[in-house]
Amino acid sequence: MFPYHKGLLADSSLQFELTATDGPARAGIIHLKGRRIQTPVFMPVGTNATVKALTVEELKSIGYQLILGNTYHLHLRPGDETVRKLGGLHKFMNWNRCLLTDSGGFQVFSLAKLNKVTEEGAFFQNHIDGSKMLLTPEASISIQENLGSDIMMVMDECLAIPADRRKVEKSIELTYRWAKRSLAARKSSNNLFGIVQGAEYEDLRLQSAEMITSIDFDGYAIGGLSVGESKDVMYGMVSAVAPKLPPDKPRYLMGVGDPLDFLNCIEQGVDMFDCVMPTRNARNGSLFTSNGKITIKQEQYKEDPKPLDDDCQCEVCRNYSRAYLRHLFKANEILASRLNTYHNLWFFKQMISEIRQAIVEGNFAAYKKSFLEKYQGS
Amino acid sequence: MFPYHKGLLADSSLQFELTATDGPARAGIIHLKGRRIQTPVFMPVGTNATVKALTVEELKSIGYQLILGNTYHLHLRPGDETVRKLGGLHKFMNWNRCLLTDSGGFQVFSLAKLNKVTEEGAFFQNHIDGSKMLLTPEASISIQENLGSDIMMVMDECLAIPADRRKVEKSIELTYRWAKRSLAARKSSNNLFGIVQGAEYEDLRLQSAEMITSIDFDGYAIGGLSVGESKDVMYGMVSAVAPKLPPDKPRYLMGVGDPLDFLNCIEQGVDMFDCVMPTRNARNGSLFTSNGKITIKQEQYKEDPKPLDDDCQCEVCRNYSRAYLRHLFKANEILASRLNTYHNLWFFKQMISEIRQAIVEGNFAAYKKSFLEKYQGS
Repeated sequence: MFPYHKGLLADSSLQFELTATDGPARAGIIHLKGRRIQTPVFMPVGTNATVKALTVEELKSIGYQLILGNTYHLHLRPGDETVRKLGGLHKFMNWNRCLLTDSGGFQVFSLAKLNKVTEEGAFFQNHIDGSKMLLTPEASISIQENLGSDIMMVMDECLAIPADRRKVEKSIELTYRWAKRSLAARKSSNNLFGIVQGAEYEDLRLQSAEMITSIDFDGYAIGGLSVGESKDVMYGMVSAVAPKLPPDKPRYLMGVGDPLDFLNCIEQGVDMFDCVMPTRNARNGSLFTSNGKITIKQEQYKEDPKPLDDDCQCEVCRNYSRAYLRHLFKANEILASRLNTYHNLWFFKQMISEIRQAIVEGNFAAYKKSFLEKYQGS
Repeated sequence: MFPYHKGLLADSSLQFELTATDGPARAGIIHLKGRRIQTPVFMPVGTNATVKALTVEELKSIGYQLILGNTYHLHLRPGDETVRKLGGLHKFMNWNRCLLTDSGGFQVFSLAKLNKVTEEGAFFQNHIDGSKMLLTPEASISIQENLGSDIMMVMDECLAIPADRRKVEKSIELTYRWAKRSLAARKSSNNLFGIVQGAEYEDLRLQSAEMITSIDFDGYAIGGLSVGESKDVMYGMVSAVAPKLPPDKPRYLMGVGDPLDFLNCIEQGVDMFDCVMPTRNARNGSLFTSNGKITIKQEQYKEDPKPLDDDCQCEVCRNYSRAYLRHLFKANEILASRLNTYHNLWFFKQMISEIRQAIVEGNFAAYKKSFLEKYQGS
């Protein structure tokens, strides 16, 4: 018997409802655990069982329904068995909305010291104490089930771009076999998404999409992008793959993006995004506004009484000046990270909501043009 | 003309109302700017125009009415002229309750590199860029008026303990002359407190108290304690000086204290405290509970599902386990500092409120005994 997080046992499979389309762009609703997650959706990243600098109450006040947890990090610390004993990740971090977890594969390929990839899985040394470990598709699913994730991801092989073509050909085959093993390993009714790989080769991307969509997953992701390639390559892969993914399931572009990525990828039919950019940039003092990005430490803001963004209704813009935010950042105050993160995540949520509204109204192209004029004009 | 913070021009002088006494222990109300600040009162320290890790909304939710800002830090960064231009410290940091500022003297004597003390003031090199600066009583008042402080402190000379007796004899004379100059320099109706010095010499403390209370200040502080001396010395000085301070004005013990200090000094008639301990300890993972202090990083809390303190009603204790707090601390997450700080400041506020209630009910001695049994029993 697996002591799953209560409430996940009954009817945890997601349903995707398509609300409207505007060309390939889609507005929908993911029905999950009795919650309605409007798509397109951006998921803040909560690596260590916390979206850095914010409380769950703040995430709720912004309107987020779905956040991401990192399997690799939580497996290492505090340990997924510990989280399971404490009632699962939702209870552990006091988040009663929805959670998606990645497979841990991306971190093994990027953050850890990778030793060897075999048919069985990936041998690596973790980045905390250097211990030698093995991540397999089955272990990843088991960890994600211990965490009690609402949406789990299959383990895939992630290659850097540019990649050797013959290596990619082999890799998408391995990723396919790992995907099947992941599904077979699932002991819960938690949702599971497959992932399309193929590096920068359109034909291999299409081949991978065909293989992965032949398996009955609850949603499909495009992985292995935003790993250093040009925006043109990324958008090219997305526009090739997205139309090949089943229209009745959510489409998730992993590790992306910024406001321009939202516009360009939602335009191709992507429904879900996650990225550390709004939270990481916030801690570095890089703030998103409707007039473009602001580097808050600049001297020009020293005595600037204006809010970050005149168009923004968030608590930060309603209560604090650029001068105060600059001061907090220069003084290395924790409150700087807090207020900056809150604002950036508010800005992302607001933008995604506006895009959705534009799709519903059949105005996506006009919205994109108007947004870009203001955002890039500054 | 001085462009003071609006709302401070009219009737900003404080009134101290004595509500109840229990032996020398006092329960009162400081009426200030239309606000009622119950005493005894603990003031969280907001060095850089923020109580580290918290928002002003959180301070309000705990019930704090009065917080402290550091003149030295704010003069250096962002600069008191900048704060003045932006509408004063209240507006700058979005705090519409009451603010006390220190004189900056203590930081010049402790944090900066002190070069020379003359009749005029203290020559020093600041700790940020090493610039040579001079702080005088007049400059300190001018800075505090630029900040728009509700309660200003006179500049005094702070000596380390143990101190040479002849040096202390001269020092309390200088502190007396600086106190008179501070009062004479005041151009606003902001409140101003005098400070008693005298290091570890009871007779010199009494002499300083007589000199300082001969000047008509809005309140009186005991300074130069909690600078490394034993608790016995500190409590001895407090019990000698407190009864000599005017009963109709607030009595403020600067830079103190912890729960034991509260009990032992309120018992002697102290009304006001400030200390970085609850906030600094929080960031270091040292947490106050009714059963004593907890070091949250300890292995014993790894899978502990209990709240920090079963008796505590704060948001942290109602929503998070010791295991989660330990995890956040070990992972060096900003949320650790946030939740820990919130809890510690809640604990301090709660304890001070309970002490006040005990004084009102004439139960102070019983409260002290009962608190200590539980707090020291663990």
